[in-house]
Formats: sequence, C-alpha cells, structure tokens
Amino acid sequence: MSLTTAPETHTIREGAFGNATHLSCRACGAQSPLGPYYACMECFGPLEVGYSYGTVTREQIEAGPKNIWRYQPLLPVPTDVESFPNTEPGYTRLVKADNLARELGLKTLWVKDDSGNPTHSFKDRVVATALSATRELGLKVFACPSTGNLANAVAAAAARAGIRSVVFIPSNLERAKIITTAVYGGTLVAVDGNYDDVNKLASEIAGEEEGWAFVNVNVRPYYSEGSKTLAFEIAEQLGWRLPQQIVVPVASGSQLTKIDKGFTELQNLGLVDTCDYKVYGAQATGCSPVAQAFRDGHDVVKPVKPDTIAKSLAIGNPADGPYVLDVTRRTGGAVEDVTDEEVVEGIQLLARTEGIFGETAGGVTVATLKKLLATGQLDPEAETVIINSGDGLKTLDAVADRVGPKVTIPATYDAFVKAGLQ
Amino acid sequence: MSLTTAPETHTIREGAFGNATHLSCRACGAQSPLGPYYACMECFGPLEVGYSYGTVTREQIEAGPKNIWRYQPLLPVPTDVESFPNTEPGYTRLVKADNLARELGLKTLWVKDDSGNPTHSFKDRVVATALSATRELGLKVFACPSTGNLANAVAAAAARAGIRSVVFIPSNLERAKIITTAVYGGTLVAVDGNYDDVNKLASEIAGEEEGWAFVNVNVRPYYSEGSKTLAFEIAEQLGWRLPQQIVVPVASGSQLTKIDKGFTELQNLGLVDTCDYKVYGAQATGCSPVAQAFRDGHDVVKPVKPDTIAKSLAIGNPADGPYVLDVTRRTGGAVEDVTDEEVVEGIQLLARTEGIFGETAGGVTVATLKKLLATGQLDPEAETVIINSGDGLKTLDAVADRVGPKVTIPATYDAFVKAGLQ
Ligand SMILES: Cc1ncc(COP(=O)(O)O)c(C=O)c1O
Ligand SMILES: Cc1ncc(COP(=O)(O)O)c(C=O)c1O
Ligand SMILES: [Zn+2]
Ligand SMILES: [Zn+2]
Repeated sequence: MSLTTAPETHTIREGAFGNATHLSCRACGAQSPLGPYYACMECFGPLEVGYSYGTVTREQIEAGPKNIWRYQPLLPVPTDVESFPNTEPGYTRLVKADNLARELGLKTLWVKDDSGNPTHSFKDRVVATALSATRELGLKVFACPSTGNLANAVAAAAARAGIRSVVFIPSNLERAKIITTAVYGGTLVAVDGNYDDVNKLASEIAGEEEGWAFVNVNVRPYYSEGSKTLAFEIAEQLGWRLPQQIVVPVASGSQLTKIDKGFTELQNLGLVDTCDYKVYGAQATGCSPVAQAFRDGHDVVKPVKPDTIAKSLAIGNPADGPYVLDVTRRTGGAVEDVTDEEVVEGIQLLARTEGIFGETAGGVTVATLKKLLATGQLDPEAETVIINSGDGLKTLDAVADRVGPKVTIPATYDAFVKAGLQ
Repeated sequence: MSLTTAPETHTIREGAFGNATHLSCRACGAQSPLGPYYACMECFGPLEVGYSYGTVTREQIEAGPKNIWRYQPLLPVPTDVESFPNTEPGYTRLVKADNLARELGLKTLWVKDDSGNPTHSFKDRVVATALSATRELGLKVFACPSTGNLANAVAAAAARAGIRSVVFIPSNLERAKIITTAVYGGTLVAVDGNYDDVNKLASEIAGEEEGWAFVNVNVRPYYSEGSKTLAFEIAEQLGWRLPQQIVVPVASGSQLTKIDKGFTELQNLGLVDTCDYKVYGAQATGCSPVAQAFRDGHDVVKPVKPDTIAKSLAIGNPADGPYVLDVTRRTGGAVEDVTDEEVVEGIQLLARTEGIFGETAGGVTVATLKKLLATGQLDPEAETVIINSGDGLKTLDAVADRVGPKVTIPATYDAFVKAGLQ
C-alpha cells in the first residue's frame, strides 16, 4: 500500500536508484519495489532502502567529487546524479577538538562540523538524495514540513534544480530561518501550530495531491539515506576507521539511525575494520521523549508537547524514536537530555574552545557529551565524535543577551589605554 | 623602517615561511627580510611576500588536504602549518551557475561560493595565513579592525588556536556580525566611528604596543597572501585552467589584487596554460572610490565617506585601491558600482536562480556582473567566474522586508486548498 499519489504515467528509468534494489519494511521485513512508497503494504511499517552492492573500494570513493556524491554507489541515486543541478553538499570538516577535549577531560574528540554545508546544516545531505528520488520518480513538487533547517535546504535545492517548492513551517519559527527560506523564492507557508501539527498536515496533503514529494514524509526512505554520508565521511576522514563513540542530536531520530546504518555498511563492505562503537542520542529536556523512553526502559516513545529553545530538535512525536532506542541500546550507548540553560552553555563552550559556532542543536550535543561524561555513561579514554549539525547564525537569540562588545570607546589611542585593553 | 613593535627576544625558526624568501616593496621594489614588517624602509610603500618556489606539481597539490593548506608551497607558511590548530578553511564549492547564466544571457558562469568557509566568508583564508605568521613571528595578540567578517574569522581562529584576540569594530555594525564575533569569547571592542576611523586606531596601536598582530595592518603582507588560494582553487576546480573573466568585490582591494597574483603564479609555475584573463572589481555606489577613480582615469583613489547597506565593503580609503586600478586596467577589465537597490536585487537573483544566499557583498558582485553585461564591458561568450565572498545569514536586514511566508494558514487540508496552494 502506498500512501503517496504518484503520477500514473511516469516510467522509472533503468539505474534510477543506483545499487538500490528494493524497499523493505523495518517492522516486518516485507519487501516492496523501488517507488514512491514509504509505508509497508503488509503492516504500515516504515520502509527503508535495500541494496546489492557488488564491490566498492576506497580508491573508487577517493577518486570521486569532494561532496556526498563520492559515495554514490552506497546511495539510492543514479551514477549520473552529479550531472543534475544540486547544492553539492557534504565533505565538511572533521575538526580535532583538543581544546574542548582537555576542558571536558576526554582523550580524543572530533567535531564533525556540518555547518559548512550549502545552507549550513546536515539537511542539505538528505535533501540532495530526496531531490534525486523526486526527479527519478517523476514527482513535480518538492515540499516539506520543517523545524527550519530542512526548510532552508529544500528551498535552496529546489531553486537550483528549477523545481517548484512548497515549504511548511510552524508560524513561530526563528526569524533567520524564515528569511533564509523565503529568499530562495519558492512558496513558504506558515502554519498555526507546532511542528507535529505541520507534519500531520503534510502527510494529509501527500496522500491527497498527485505528484507531491514531501522529502521527509513520502520520499523519506530516499531522504534518510542521505544521512549515511555523515558516517561515511567520518570514517574516511579518520583514515578509514570508525570512532569508538559518537554523539548525535535527535529530533525525528533519522540522522542517528542512519549514521549507525552507514557504519554497519562500511564494515559489511570491508571498507573499515569491524569494531565496536557506541551511539549516543542527544535531546533538549523540553523535548526529550526518546531520552525518557530510554531511561524508562520502554521500546515505544510517548509523544510530548515540545517546549525548548532548541527548535530544530522540537519534534514531540519522533518517527524514528523506536529505532533510536534500538541502536543506542544495541551498541551500548544511551540517550540523554539537557536543559535550555545547558544548551546555551554548550554553544558557548564549543565556540570558545574550538572556534565553532553551532546552533542550538549543536549546543544540545555538546552539553549532552558533557553530561554523559559527568555521569560516567561515556568513556573518556575512547575516541569520540560529536556532530555539529547546524549553524549558530540561525539561532542568534539563544546567545544574544549573553555576549557582546566588552566596551565601546572613542577612536583614540588614549581611550584604548584608558579602557585597560593593553 | 618597521611600524610594528615586535618582541625583541623572538628568533624566527628555519622554514617559518615555507618557500617565501623576502618581502618586497610594491612601490619601489626594495627588499626587506621576512619579519613583522609591512612598510618599505625606503619609501613607506606596502610590502608583499616574494618566493623562490623550486618545482610545484599538480600531483603534489592534489595529494594535499582538502583545505587551503594543499597550496602550502605557494604560501608564506611552514610545511607543518597543518599541525597547528586552525580553522581549516577553503576548498569551497565552485558551482556551475547555468540558471543565472541563462537569466543574464551569459554562456558559462561559475560561482565560487566562499560562504562555505568556517565562519562563512573568504576572510577565514587570510586569517589562516596571518595566524601562521603571527605564531612564527612570536607575536602574542591576534587583532584586527573589521567591517564584520574579519572580526568573525579572527575571533574564531584565535579561540581555536588558544591565542588572545582583540577585535575592533564600528559600533553600528550588523547585530549578527557582533554576536558571531563575541560568542568566541575574545575581547570585542566597539569603536565610535566608521571603519576608516577604526582602521586608523588599529595602526596607532600596532605602532605602540609590543607584540600585537593586527592581521590586516602590520601582518598584512602574510594575511593578504591567503586570498591567492581563491585563485588556486578556481583554477584547480576548473581542471587546472584559468577563467577568461572574473568579478571580485572590492573593499580594501586586497582580495582582487591577490587573485590576480595567484593566477600569475600558476602560469609562471606552469600549473596552468598561459592565457589572457580579465579582472573586474565590484563596489557599492555608496562606497565606490575605486570605481570612481577607474572611470576618471586616475591612478590614485580619493577617499570617500561610505554610505551603503554593503557594510562589509564599506572602506572609504582602500589600501590596495591603486593596485586594483592597475590590475583591472592591465587585464582589460573594469571597476563598476551598483546602487543599494541593485544590491538587494542581486542577493535575491542569486538565491532564486542558484540556491545560494550571499551577503550584501555577494549582491554587489552579482549586480555588478549584470551591469557589466548590460553596458557591454563584459563578454557574454567568455567563461566567467564570480566570487560570493560572504553569507546572507549575516545581513538578513538587507532582504528582511522583501521576503517572507506567502500566507499563514491553520493546520488543516481545507485551509491548504482554500489558500490556493495546490
Ligand atoms: C540542526 C539539526 N540537527 C539535528 C536534527 C535532527 O535530525 P533528525 O530528525 O534526523 O533526528 C535536525 C532536524 O531538524 C536539525 O535541524
Ligand atoms: C564578504 C566580503 N567580501 C569582500 C570583501 C573585500 O575584501 P578586500 O578588503 O580584500 O577588498 C570583504 C572585506 O571585508 C568582505 O567582508
Ligand atoms: Zn511491514
Ligand atoms: Zn619602497
């Protein structure tokens, strides 16, 4: 059963999805063909992409472009994906964070800084694979419900690809994220309600309207595969090796589960040595349904009404919540949450020690790293990676009343001396 | 004569400046040793770095890291520069801008998108080479006067390097640029006055205080070399080839002159074929002293009092103004200026066609490209590159009252239909 209304007339071309061969249900395992499907025909469970890889070598990847398309053989995209206009995201910095490590008492810490992406969040990755699927499936409207970053990424990618975009956001979103979406010239729709309301509306529209691709709803299986590139890049940038611990922010939970999938695929393909790694999830206390379920030992996640400054993570009813619980428990990790106060301190800590200005989601992740260490849940001796998934410029209000000029002086040397600046 | 007070006791180590061998005066040609000097002992003219390269190959560069340090042999930095904490800037996207080209009637257009740098402007490049020189020269305070982007880059790089920073800005700067500097935790000083006042104050402090490195004042010869990496990357990303035309925003004029220097060096080293290229400068009419001098056929630039929304380009007395005139005239290019209204349209045009949200400086460059074409000064058949040197997120006010949600609706399918969004 498909909940998507796809154009009847479109024929999917040979190779449209690269090495991907089918969709399979994450709940019951039933298979579906590649198509505009996202829910299992048997059980309504969520679908994910399955592959038949053949051989993929490090050399092949290293010879590729310096963006996510170097991993084309591991993604549901055609070999000529590069030739279609896209934002060319990925291959962002992996920064050795010695200052932050020292301050936290960690031995080896890396920050994967995804603020270097085209619209400055990891969402450019998932939107790029969703855009490819949208084109190959013959869908005509590129759309999403968004907490902000996805809105930016969808609007930008649509502008570049020359496809119509319609982006739905909660009407109370940060000003920066609204302007940075609208400037690309697509249709931006503010919805009275929170993200979960907007998301529900998107599902309804996806089921009614022909040819709409809601990237994170009905194109979700293809969309979410984009997050695997975070795992691939981290491994490649470490010299084809997995870290022992990784801390990932959690909203819907897609990014975290796909990073685990990426690490698993690299091991299966022999691109990295097999090894144990622990995956940790990070949430803001004001929207921490997955952390709560983790602590309670539950397998299902009880929806909450979000109330936190970390708006990009404010999904109260996370689609991949159960899978986050599964991954973190299976690998020996955990899901923790931190207060808004800690989020702001986390933003400042990362900026002050490493010169990286993350958004509130980055603050959540840094603060969670700190808490996991303080509570003994994370091993300070094990090599650790954290994801900075977004950009501080989009959430200036979080720190605005804490930082500013130390002093204002007239433009004279005397004033400089008097102000004690020597 | 040095106008810098350097620590007496510091010995410069062997190889501190890589293949650089000396400083030479751009006015009279007199040579000085490598050191904390920026003005000629004979004539007070500005100094620039000279090299003795030996052989540098494409293979050697291509095997390097995916940031500016791949060009280490062509920069005044030591071979181990990578091992010191730095923000790892560069290797940003070169985007084929077919949509924008079509809209403007240009055959082949590329956008070098430097908003992907760590603090989202090209300034991370120059700050990185300045930081290396500061360390090698034994200077202890990392400082600058800034129109904003440099402030962000200096504060971030200093945080990561663990060096004291003191950043001087005009007190009326954009809020985003103030917060994004202060968050890194260095000392931010607001100065009552415009950029030229702040710059004068910085020169005075540089001459009085021991051990201060004002990146764009007394460390300027090393700083400005960082902009050559824009030229290197463009050539490498085009497949080791120079474009025929390039449009570059001009504030002090350093970036433009160093892009020309970079292109020249690549030809001299045989890394690209020798060919003619034209360099064009872009200014905002409200601060267009170089464009004015170009039109008037003058060799010197008459200072102006800036009044434009393009604050990052608001330098009324540009240090490299005469050299911009020299490069643009010698190569057959031009310097043009555009109104604030055109700047805003330029920002929107780039965003709408290519999904790239530049700051006001990017708007200046796009609008100037358009004007150069309309006035027949730029050849629509020749391969052209424009620089997007900064990020729209830092100058939201420029477009804030022009863009926004198309409509606000309740979270129901009915409301969606009624709003005519199908
Ligand atoms: C900056 C940022 N980080 C992390 C996330 C979490 O992503 P996911 O929904 O895949 O858990 C989001 C989601 O919007 C985000 O915007
Ligand atoms: C975004 C941006 N573009 C261009 C420039 C011009 O640089 P230059 O002073 O080297 O001419 C600046 C200078 O501050 C800038 O911030
Ligand atoms: Zn099923
Ligand atoms: Zn001289």
